[in-house]
Amino acid sequence: MTSIDIIKAPTSDPADTAGPLHTLRQAGFRVSDLLAVVGKTEGNGCVNDFSRGLSAAVWEPLIPDDAITVFSGGTEGVLTPHVTLLVADRAEHPGYDRGLVAATGRTRVIAAEELGRAAQVEAVRASVESLVGKLALRTEDVHLVLVKCPLLTSTQVSSCRDRGLEPVTDDTYESMARSRLASSLGIARALDECTDAQVEAALEGSQQVWSRRASASSGAELADCHILVLGTSEAASNPLRAAHASMRDAIDADTVVQLLEQVRAEGGTVVQVLAKAEASPDGQIRGRRHTMLTDSDLQSTRHARAAVGGLLAGLVQDTAIYVSGGAEAQGAPGGGSLTVLYRLSPR
Amino acid sequence: MTSIDIIKAPTSDPADTAGPLHTLRQAGFRVSDLLAVVGKTEGNGCVNDFSRGLSAAVWEPLIPDDAITVFSGGTEGVLTPHVTLLVADRAEHPGYDRGLVAATGRTRVIAAEELGRAAQVEAVRASVESLVGKLALRTEDVHLVLVKCPLLTSTQVSSCRDRGLEPVTDDTYESMARSRLASSLGIARALDECTDAQVEAALEGSQQVWSRRASASSGAELADCHILVLGTSEAASNPLRAAHASMRDAIDADTVVQLLEQVRAEGGTVVQVLAKAEASPDGQIRGRRHTMLTDSDLQSTRHARAAVGGLLAGLVQDTAIYVSGGAEAQGAPGGGSLTVLYRLSPR
Amino acid sequence: MTSIDIIKAPTSDPADTAGPLHTLRQAGFRVSDLLAVVGKTEGNGCVNDFSRGLSAAVWEPLIPDDAITVFSGGTEGVLTPHVTLLVADRAEHPGYDRGLVAATGRTRVIAAEELGRAAQVEAVRASVESLVGKLALRTEDVHLVLVKCPLLTSTQVSSCRDRGLEPVTDDTYESMARSRLASSLGIARALDECTDAQVEAALEGSQQVWSRRASASSGAELADCHILVLGTSEAASNPLRAAHASMRDAIDADTVVQLLEQVRAEGGTVVQVLAKAEASPDGQIRGRRHTMLTDSDLQSTRHARAAVGGLLAGLVQDTAIYVSGGAEAQGAPGGGSLTVLYRLSPR
Amino acid sequence: MTSIDIIKAPTSDPADTAGPLHTLRQAGFRVSDLLAVVGKTEGNGCVNDFSRGLSAAVWEPLIPDDAITVFSGGTEGVLTPHVTLLVADRAEHPGYDRGLVAATGRTRVIAAEELGRAAQVEAVRASVESLVGKLALRTEDVHLVLVKCPLLTSTQVSSCRDRGLEPVTDDTYESMARSRLASSLGIARALDECTDAQVEAALEGSQQVWSRRASASSGAELADCHILVLGTSEAASNPLRAAHASMRDAIDADTVVQLLEQVRAEGGTVVQVLAKAEASPDGQIRGRRHTMLTDSDLQSTRHARAAVGGLLAGLVQDTAIYVSGGAEAQGAPGGGSLTVLYRLSPR
Repeated sequence: MTSIDIIKAPTSDPADTAGPLHTLRQAGFRVSDLLAVVGKTEGNGCVNDFSRGLSAAVWEPLIPDDAITVFSGGTEGVLTPHVTLLVADRAEHPGYDRGLVAATGRTRVIAAEELGRAAQVEAVRASVESLVGKLALRTEDVHLVLVKCPLLTSTQVSSCRDRGLEPVTDDTYESMARSRLASSLGIARALDECTDAQVEAALEGSQQVWSRRASASSGAELADCHILVLGTSEAASNPLRAAHASMRDAIDADTVVQLLEQVRAEGGTVVQVLAKAEASPDGQIRGRRHTMLTDSDLQSTRHARAAVGGLLAGLVQDTAIYVSGGAEAQGAPGGGSLTVLYRLSPR
Repeated sequence: MTSIDIIKAPTSDPADTAGPLHTLRQAGFRVSDLLAVVGKTEGNGCVNDFSRGLSAAVWEPLIPDDAITVFSGGTEGVLTPHVTLLVADRAEHPGYDRGLVAATGRTRVIAAEELGRAAQVEAVRASVESLVGKLALRTEDVHLVLVKCPLLTSTQVSSCRDRGLEPVTDDTYESMARSRLASSLGIARALDECTDAQVEAALEGSQQVWSRRASASSGAELADCHILVLGTSEAASNPLRAAHASMRDAIDADTVVQLLEQVRAEGGTVVQVLAKAEASPDGQIRGRRHTMLTDSDLQSTRHARAAVGGLLAGLVQDTAIYVSGGAEAQGAPGGGSLTVLYRLSPR
Repeated sequence: MTSIDIIKAPTSDPADTAGPLHTLRQAGFRVSDLLAVVGKTEGNGCVNDFSRGLSAAVWEPLIPDDAITVFSGGTEGVLTPHVTLLVADRAEHPGYDRGLVAATGRTRVIAAEELGRAAQVEAVRASVESLVGKLALRTEDVHLVLVKCPLLTSTQVSSCRDRGLEPVTDDTYESMARSRLASSLGIARALDECTDAQVEAALEGSQQVWSRRASASSGAELADCHILVLGTSEAASNPLRAAHASMRDAIDADTVVQLLEQVRAEGGTVVQVLAKAEASPDGQIRGRRHTMLTDSDLQSTRHARAAVGGLLAGLVQDTAIYVSGGAEAQGAPGGGSLTVLYRLSPR
Repeated sequence: MTSIDIIKAPTSDPADTAGPLHTLRQAGFRVSDLLAVVGKTEGNGCVNDFSRGLSAAVWEPLIPDDAITVFSGGTEGVLTPHVTLLVADRAEHPGYDRGLVAATGRTRVIAAEELGRAAQVEAVRASVESLVGKLALRTEDVHLVLVKCPLLTSTQVSSCRDRGLEPVTDDTYESMARSRLASSLGIARALDECTDAQVEAALEGSQQVWSRRASASSGAELADCHILVLGTSEAASNPLRAAHASMRDAIDADTVVQLLEQVRAEGGTVVQVLAKAEASPDGQIRGRRHTMLTDSDLQSTRHARAAVGGLLAGLVQDTAIYVSGGAEAQGAPGGGSLTVLYRLSPR
């Protein structure tokens, strides 16, 4: 059970560690306190997003062995490249009835032929359950499970076939969706939000099952899954809190406003918003056609991040938020999971 | 002075006239009533956006000789391709102290060497003044001047040089911005919002002058400028009204909410929102870096439309709105002009 | 059996019919002589390529009822937008032992649920056989079967599902590949190049079967398949000839050079080159990695057209050639079908 | 005077150093022998190409202090990501009348306001002259000067203005062209290919001056210019040779074939080809329109690399070649400089 604090810092480019580390130190923490570096980097967020790889290359050697990185590409529109640093907070914060806690871990390497399939679901499920257990959290006190998971490159697709095995897809961009789906189902299963049968159906295309607390992002810069579990625990005492919901669709301002009002009602200040966004799979938003799925120049995840990022940044009045594209089983179809981290006023 | 009504209809593709014409007839109007077809089409909104050209090719032969088309490309993110049909409304609507009126016109052809320069400013100014005069409007009663203006293709740049003349730029995408700027300065000048000296400075790069009522969009599908002037007149009586403002930046939700509250306070229902959006030229939004101007895969106008479209659609709860990219002299730098058309309750 | 002539004309933009029609008249032909307008237009060649739709919108009303249009989008790199006009040539050209002949036709409308499946294969096969029969050609005298076929938009995917039917894919870009594949298998079957069992296997993913004479292109601008069969017939007498081959891969200059040397050996002059190009599905060219399938910013068909177009234009010394992307069952995997049309010297 | 050898190795991704270093060792060299790592990486080759930055981040810590990296982004079409390793070759190769030699260096940091202007020209000129002097080469024996130079990001444009200085352009993509131009003029001046007055005119837009031996590439991953000079010297003895030319336009296969025939005539085997490519600035290739400058979805440098890369790979029968986009003053307008490195047969 690790009580945490959260520091947010803009980055001047994907290789910028100096700026965030300065902010970290100013906040009274050291690199050895880092549990996770969760960044938005300015690539396309798709298969060939090397901004993620560059950030991983500069951060990985700096952080503790058991800390993780999660770099989500794509800062379309108004979004600001930045990192959210989660640190172990060993200071006393008396007077709070609970506190935000976190645990991080990794699955084993996901083989190319396992990606997007039951084996990936199972690996993520096992890791999430282990981390929830480590935090001694009731599943209802988990507010966010953030996963960074691998994808399939052409090379991996080919090597898979050379071994006589068939990958889940040979479309590299589509492999990102399949990986996010499998990770999210692993989360949903670990949090008792669905059954094994529902997982199976979801892997076959059913869109009935989803978790409001799952946020998965895929990338070529890793071969295993990096996992962060965030929850509130009565065993901790700190001013950080979390609330979560699911946006019903990409223009669901009401849900966002309600969550923000809840924060305000508790006297809280928003520290970070983490949202998933996607193009509604049926090509429509409230009965009106959108064109995200027929735009061959611009992937739908880029469209979705830009639009939902614009809405959230306007509502929260902050551009340094974590909006990630591709919300398979992460919130309602066409919508997405939404977590707000906030800080209660000092008491 | 033409009292107008406004009909909004989604389109199934850029060549779709049947759907909108059906809606027009159901509303009790005929094609001969059309003053303007203002559409959002699903191309990239940039130089090679042939969705605009396709819409123009199918609509131009249908509409009255003195009606105009304005097709603005780009329905990034949640935006829905649609047309806004402005029709002359000859019905009596007694009991209103004023009404929304409109006039449309065209400038002469803008030569390639004139584009983005004083000659274009002057041509637009003269046309706008003439239309405002025709409507017998005080300039303060004008709520929107919408302009569709030409751009420079490679062929035009070359032919210009072959004639020994230098175009304002040889970057075809940049020519769109220059054309929007010149048109907008023409509007600002016609509405007495700036001096000739300020126009000159603005053409040289000064960002001091802008109009909250200007909305200009450029395209390869025309050689002159199409102009629509919208205002409220005491000489008319109908339930349509307009309000306008300028967004301070791309996340300025407050200004939008205020305008919507004003509409609500008057008992109005939003009919259409017309907004301009752009990437802040200094690369920042409220002191935080954005990446719209360093993304060589995706033009900044596409980013801006997606983000501001996402915000506005969420606030208005409608995806069939007119959000156009590139806001040079159209509202504050980094923000954009914003006009809301609304309908008062029957009385 | 229609003896034909071929006129090639550049276009100033996708809506340009005036230029080509002027060239047509100068060559001594009339619009009523047109059998087919085969164009390269300057869109992205993908789902949202409205340059094709614009060209179709301006050409379709002009041409005879039984003539067809085939607009293939994408003039990446050095390629020039142009049209190739195939006209019925009723003049006498004595002294030739044979001549180039052509026939055109259309299939019925391909329903969304049929696209990419056996029903589309069968519809194309039947039409091709009928056209080959009409020309009284031996299958070995057929040098090119050019097909323009439909694709699936989001709207079609959704309406298909609303009817309880599953489309072959819900990825709109992928639907283009499936449609090209089905059309090409229909051609291969009609030309006795494969068995029904091989067609079935190919629809399931086998890449064993392909035709060196098939060239299929998909688009949103039509609902049926437009088909052109070109061959040489001893019943005709004209100076036009055709030769075909398959490029082994995207850098197979040898095959191109051999074909061009054959033309030269016969004293011929190249009139037009029609080639298909694709990213090698295994992610490699001669054992070296290519990145066309991992580039999420730029579809692989655009990459392939640009590269193969660059090679062919350099070898033929002409940029107004027909290079089309996506070569499923059209020539060897990673390569593509290649047809050269040429004119013998007057005798 | 450093006699060199050249090792070429494919890379599995931009972070791959293991593969090339293995190849280096197999060839009998050590990391300490490295003079330069010249790579093609798989990003977009434009402003936000982080594949270059990632390669620089992993290679820079490995190589000797006075060695340089040059990473050129963009492997469109058939091109293979790879590195060309230039190493000091201390072995004896008796029996050759000359040998290929190289020297590398760096300019001072180029300030944002200097970029694309006379100050950058001068800095490059001075460094090139110094390196040519160090190699004791006659300018006619220089076959290639390769430069990697900086660009302007939004942040740099803004900070420049904040200091009251005006950057050469505020378009970040355009800044790449300006930087390449200035570097190339510095090369041309150092090689006595032009006068100061011609440099001045070229900075103002004249396209009269260019060098067949200049190859400049810009990127955000460095602030100074990295420079490599390659030539043949009678003071060295090794089997490597170089030949250079300028392609007249993007389909100038003749010039390429002539150079390759010259190599063959000498009994040489091609080791590497380095070419610059660009969209012809007048929008035409041999009088026919191209669309590279009106495609707002895809930058013209990407088009040009794909097309010229396709041609060269086909002619050389190798996809691991160095084709770089944007040929301002590097070969004829619309064409580009071309250098072939080859190895004579053992004697």
